[in-house]
Amino acid sequence: MKKWNIKLSEFGENTENHLRLLIENEKIKGNEEKTKITMRLGDPSVFGNFPPHPSIKSAITEAIQRDKFTYAGNVGYIFAREAVAEYASHMGEIKADDVILTNCCSMSLEMCILALANRGENILVPKPCYHYETFTNGIGIEIQYYNLDPENDWQIDLVHLESLINEKTKAIVVNSPGNPCGNVFSLQHMFEIIDIAERHCLPIISDEIYEFVTFGDVKHYSFASVSKNVPILVCSGLTKRFLTPAIRCGWIIISDRGNKLQEIRKGLIQKIGGRGFGPNSTIQHALSNILKNVPQTFFNNVNARVDNNARLLFDHLNKIKGLRPIMPKGSIFMLLKIELEKFPKISSSMEFMQLLIKEQNVYTFPSECFHFPGYLRLVLTIPTDVLLETCTRFEEFCNKYLNNEQ
Amino acid sequence: MKKWNIKLSEFGENTENHLRLLIENEKIKGNEEKTKITMRLGDPSVFGNFPPHPSIKSAITEAIQRDKFTYAGNVGYIFAREAVAEYASHMGEIKADDVILTNCCSMSLEMCILALANRGENILVPKPCYHYETFTNGIGIEIQYYNLDPENDWQIDLVHLESLINEKTKAIVVNSPGNPCGNVFSLQHMFEIIDIAERHCLPIISDEIYEFVTFGDVKHYSFASVSKNVPILVCSGLTKRFLTPAIRCGWIIISDRGNKLQEIRKGLIQKIGGRGFGPNSTIQHALSNILKNVPQTFFNNVNARVDNNARLLFDHLNKIKGLRPIMPKGSIFMLLKIELEKFPKISSSMEFMQLLIKEQNVYTFPSECFHFPGYLRLVLTIPTDVLLETCTRFEEFCNKYLNNEQ
Repeated sequence: MKKWNIKLSEFGENTENHLRLLIENEKIKGNEEKTKITMRLGDPSVFGNFPPHPSIKSAITEAIQRDKFTYAGNVGYIFAREAVAEYASHMGEIKADDVILTNCCSMSLEMCILALANRGENILVPKPCYHYETFTNGIGIEIQYYNLDPENDWQIDLVHLESLINEKTKAIVVNSPGNPCGNVFSLQHMFEIIDIAERHCLPIISDEIYEFVTFGDVKHYSFASVSKNVPILVCSGLTKRFLTPAIRCGWIIISDRGNKLQEIRKGLIQKIGGRGFGPNSTIQHALSNILKNVPQTFFNNVNARVDNNARLLFDHLNKIKGLRPIMPKGSIFMLLKIELEKFPKISSSMEFMQLLIKEQNVYTFPSECFHFPGYLRLVLTIPTDVLLETCTRFEEFCNKYLNNEQ
Repeated sequence: MKKWNIKLSEFGENTENHLRLLIENEKIKGNEEKTKITMRLGDPSVFGNFPPHPSIKSAITEAIQRDKFTYAGNVGYIFAREAVAEYASHMGEIKADDVILTNCCSMSLEMCILALANRGENILVPKPCYHYETFTNGIGIEIQYYNLDPENDWQIDLVHLESLINEKTKAIVVNSPGNPCGNVFSLQHMFEIIDIAERHCLPIISDEIYEFVTFGDVKHYSFASVSKNVPILVCSGLTKRFLTPAIRCGWIIISDRGNKLQEIRKGLIQKIGGRGFGPNSTIQHALSNILKNVPQTFFNNVNARVDNNARLLFDHLNKIKGLRPIMPKGSIFMLLKIELEKFPKISSSMEFMQLLIKEQNVYTFPSECFHFPGYLRLVLTIPTDVLLETCTRFEEFCNKYLNNEQ
């Protein structure tokens, strides 16, 4: 007699999103004497203080009337791909044929990685970083982590990056504006990165989901607009800049310098695209208006408010002994260094995060989730009064745990 | 000096959707003297004669007002999962925890297959069938095709099915109502299939995307409602029954008989679900109303009209020498057998399809796409006048190519 014994596959076992797994399996209870404050997911919609521009809902409401729900082909309706191509004109000449619509930027990244690397091969990825491993570990593609330098504006340690390249390296993943660091690379630094890619003949997968979310005078340049000879696969979508996290509309823009991505283009559009996992048809019908109708002043205002929150948080946390915030240049995150040597009873940023929930009901992500222990990631899009309350709680917490004999 | 040489990965090379690849690479030009008639994709929205019920657009228009675009967790908002659980109550006791929301039914199938089978292991799949290989070949999961019998209502050849099971078999995929055959299994036949699964301790992945799309007295039963001890993963979504192909909202329903899918449930929800490739938030907000507000009379009417088209097509094609249509019991397709021995100048159903485009501007899929040569797949949701025109063109075409010496 056979027995039932249904096991999860290796793909299932190895597909892990550390952030979501931590949430799903968390057993700690927050201190109910205090209101819950969550600075976790990069979701600006949670508190209601960063609603999307009203033209987005209008565009969708109008589009639903036109929508016939007809299959959109492998990679999206041509008119929706044209709309993204026009939106991406800052990258140079981008045509509808260069645009692939996907469910979200994460899926864009997954598709690019799966198109370029085989099991046993590797891609280079920043550390700390977004959970790129969710799209590699299940397949058996290896990740080599290159260091970002917190003491140097989170720029890439270029010597370290280059030292990791071997004959099995298939792509360099870059992320600017970056999660979780809030780094934004200068033009000069981008040229340096592109130079390494060119010398090693490696394409760049550029995760630009925080495109144009920068503070003050800092400017966002797409790697696609800067590169002359290195082909770039830009991954982005509506999620962050447009403040619509769950709208599920991402894209890949193929910026193929010198026709080096012909096989990849065909593979992405005709083969991997054949899975048919694109965005909802109504959103595609609305896409042109969504991309055109949000005024620049709206984006400027959002950036200024996030910047303001970042400064406020920085100023307050910087005064608290044992904490060292690092001012971001863009994105919606800040990393907060925990000077663990000053907290003798706390052994890691993970434990710090857990105690902060238990005692202060403040939820953050420890940078263990980003392969870079010692920090907490804070989300900058929470209301200002909550932000200030958070700082008060951090202070109370630190005062309790600081080694006051120092 | 290194040289640029960017190759498509094995995953990319092997991920193939035969239907879409055929379309993407087709070089034949249709006869422009005649209007183009396409009976290809299973997309009832193309001709405008099968619009979705108006309550669907109302539900979405209303939902967009409530939508805050907040991240929906790994597998969907709890209220949307509850709505699907309630909709699925015909399967027995289904709770929100048993429901996983996905981008589409194809993604549901991909997730179930990837959770159950490893590279080098296999799943059993019907022949002819939908393009399940799109979700296996890239990973290296093998497919064993079991025969459906055209002479016996496209029922499964159970002896053949059982003969294919080996120690590396991880699941049986079933599809009723089925694509491309239009088969709908009787309760008795379902019991026989479940019995084999039980004896071999194999879970069933039941592709029920055409649920309740049946003709006349034929009834649809979910495998989940019929099975007592065999765990069933039901894959479905809004695409077909609700006539909204590109709405992008699918689901998996975990009907776990006897807690045999505990690992798989955790793997699907916490691990593979961590990729975050779910449906658009507005559709999730609208889902409860979409699932509740379309009256049964609407579905009955759609089924009756598709049935009517099937009968009409059957009656006309059945009179044409060289063609042998097989009357479906459900879904939106009919398979048409080409008696190739009567067409001495045509060597295959693929060539028949190509000539039919070239001379009659009628587009169909040859059953080579479904691993079962000798047939054409016809879509039943085209307008009746077009259907009749198609029959006229088939007749003209056959008269030209029939071996009239017979």
